[in-house]
Amino acid sequence: MDDKLTLYSFWRSQASYRVRIALALKGLPVELRTIDLLKGEQHQEDYRAINPEGLVPAFIEGSEPPLVQSLAIIEYIDEKHPEPPLLPRGLRDRAHVRGLAQVAAMDAHPLIVPRVRNYLAKQLGLDEAARNEWLKHWLEEGNRALETMLSRSGRTGRFCFGDAVTLADVCLVPHLITAGMLYDLDLRLYPICDRIFGHCMELDAFAKTQPKLQPGASAGH
Amino acid sequence: MDDKLTLYSFWRSQASYRVRIALALKGLPVELRTIDLLKGEQHQEDYRAINPEGLVPAFIEGSEPPLVQSLAIIEYIDEKHPEPPLLPRGLRDRAHVRGLAQVAAMDAHPLIVPRVRNYLAKQLGLDEAARNEWLKHWLEEGNRALETMLSRSGRTGRFCFGDAVTLADVCLVPHLITAGMLYDLDLRLYPICDRIFGHCMELDAFAKTQPKLQPGASAGH
Repeated sequence: MDDKLTLYSFWRSQASYRVRIALALKGLPVELRTIDLLKGEQHQEDYRAINPEGLVPAFIEGSEPPLVQSLAIIEYIDEKHPEPPLLPRGLRDRAHVRGLAQVAAMDAHPLIVPRVRNYLAKQLGLDEAARNEWLKHWLEEGNRALETMLSRSGRTGRFCFGDAVTLADVCLVPHLITAGMLYDLDLRLYPICDRIFGHCMELDAFAKTQPKLQPGASAGH
Repeated sequence: MDDKLTLYSFWRSQASYRVRIALALKGLPVELRTIDLLKGEQHQEDYRAINPEGLVPAFIEGSEPPLVQSLAIIEYIDEKHPEPPLLPRGLRDRAHVRGLAQVAAMDAHPLIVPRVRNYLAKQLGLDEAARNEWLKHWLEEGNRALETMLSRSGRTGRFCFGDAVTLADVCLVPHLITAGMLYDLDLRLYPICDRIFGHCMELDAFAKTQPKLQPGASAGH
């Protein structure tokens, strides 16, 4: 079983959800192993041996060494299993799609992950209200940037780029689920994002891999 | 002059420096336009028209619309101008290189940018000591993760991957310059990173584009 795929994942991790979506879009079965970030399982030595950052996801193919970083994993999956493609063919189009993906994944998301929330609580002593202000601020910054970029592009269609799912949607939907479902932000303020979100969630690859359907999911934050 | 390249850049921006390195590696001349992040020029309406996030860099080719997000810009440059390649050929090797790049660019860097430092100072009222603690904490997290990943990989060589520069070096060096020169962290604690840094800085593409040689550079933070 050299090709067996394993993903270390957590229900509310945006980065894990991105990889689950990509694998589902490619029709690749994967065994999920839960690393409970709220219980601190990412800090255990045996997980650090898999991902020295102590973050999820980590992706393992057969007996190969783990791969880390969600976007690196997704581009790997896309290069190895090209159909359906997650990037358009045109070079500038690819840059536009990667740019949208990175606004969600590189600018908004890194500011709201558990290790940052823990620092705000423990090192800075922020109460829950101040922590939620922080989270909402950066999520809204991301929402505004994505909505503006999508509104300016002539190539925005049923999805972020045209009428087929790309890497941009793979990153947009986890961002919006975090913003809308976990932090109650009103996504109707971002009508293009909201519409694309709806179209994505009609697809099993997005709907069946979503956070609330994962092992250990809870209704709270 | 349809092919004229313009980069909106700031001397101490890691993301701008990454793109300057990539352009220099490819031998592509570029006109730099300074957006002074410390003076708030990124918030001006005419710059928001170029990059709705109000971040640097933004990259313009001739009369084409701007491209944003440093990694998206660099992969675009690499796809359009394939020599010398910034990614290895093997798919797993590409994922390893992208993973290293993203540890620096997606995990460490987003936590220390001016907009975050401003939030810490203005919204949270942190004094300079507490802000520096924050910055050093996330830079050191990045250093540790990168050193561990490089020490575990059998492919680490003169550079992050083998003996030719890749995207991983293009992201590592700006991270280390921020950590070592701007925040006085002791890079000798990370001997593999430090050694690769030295090899990169022997190359004009890294040395001549470095922050302190850019317009408006100052000795302070």
